[in-house]
Amino acid sequence: MKVSVGVSNRHVHLNDDDYKLLFGEIPMTKRNDLTQPGCFASDMLVTITGPKRSIENVRVLGPNRSYTQVEVSKTDSYALGINPPVRNSGDLADAVEVTITGPNGSITRNAAIIASRHIHVDKKIRREHNLEGIDMVSVKIPGEKGGIIENVYLKDSAEAYFEIHLDTDDANAHLLKQNDEVEIIIN
Amino acid sequence: MKVSVGVSNRHVHLNDDDYKLLFGEIPMTKRNDLTQPGCFASDMLVTITGPKRSIENVRVLGPNRSYTQVEVSKTDSYALGINPPVRNSGDLADAVEVTITGPNGSITRNAAIIASRHIHVDKKIRREHNLEGIDMVSVKIPGEKGGIIENVYLKDSAEAYFEIHLDTDDANAHLLKQNDEVEIIIN
Repeated sequence: MKVSVGVSNRHVHLNDDDYKLLFGEIPMTKRNDLTQPGCFASDMLVTITGPKRSIENVRVLGPNRSYTQVEVSKTDSYALGINPPVRNSGDLADAVEVTITGPNGSITRNAAIIASRHIHVDKKIRREHNLEGIDMVSVKIPGEKGGIIENVYLKDSAEAYFEIHLDTDDANAHLLKQNDEVEIIIN
Repeated sequence: MKVSVGVSNRHVHLNDDDYKLLFGEIPMTKRNDLTQPGCFASDMLVTITGPKRSIENVRVLGPNRSYTQVEVSKTDSYALGINPPVRNSGDLADAVEVTITGPNGSITRNAAIIASRHIHVDKKIRREHNLEGIDMVSVKIPGEKGGIIENVYLKDSAEAYFEIHLDTDDANAHLLKQNDEVEIIIN
């Protein structure tokens, strides 16, 4: 079955305490809604610094979460000089140290991961697309630089928009853009 | 069968005339040999400029060829603001315009492509690996961000080192490094 593509550029999730350390009393304001219900890109930008280099203008997504997490691509990781693990969002086991700098200050956290390839689903989507009881799928990508990507997790939430999230490395390697369509393969 | 991985960062090939326009009387000097016999990375660096931005310190490979070609990734293309076609090396049909700047001057050429995924072979390699008469294969990549990449061309030369060349997008998307091993699948 088909699923549409969402391309995730590098971004940051913050917990409330870290948000205050970085932005002080500046309230988080919304730039635009994201496809997942309730999620949005904020106007807030930070700088991420690793042992090798910094990347500026990294967007903070909202609302704040219970954990601080920096999602980067492998390409970003080489630039920063870090070697983060591939992890599902929220699983910060072995996440690597980076410094995050905002207008109010800097924090250093074991927060950097490369996000696993994942598809957002909810109970209704699982039922409608015969995905009940399935944890992981492969996805067939068409085109001149197409192929099959493996280890694509189904990520549950109470209310989801049915979409595969790929980082910029996966998207660019396969010449995929936001809203392109790819095909789920049940293993 | 297994083949080892060569990761191709963005690079430039020049013809003799364009070399002179960019470097004047400065002779090309060798930095290091590449895996393909006779090919080398030179000490010469240029800046590539597209409508959006420039990328500095792009290496010129030697020896010079009969054509000028700029090989970039899709990630580079977004930075430069260009939309190059996927092409085999030497096929500059619809290659897009970029400006190349060296110490002696600048040239603007329809030269930018995204290189097709390819495996270097020669007659002996084809015979030894049962690849005779085959133009294109798929390749299975192991690991957490593994999968199968399609449309991998077999590229013949008189004497080749048996290796798959992937651009940094393909390598980074699949967490591949130089000299990793992947598996050829005959379609």
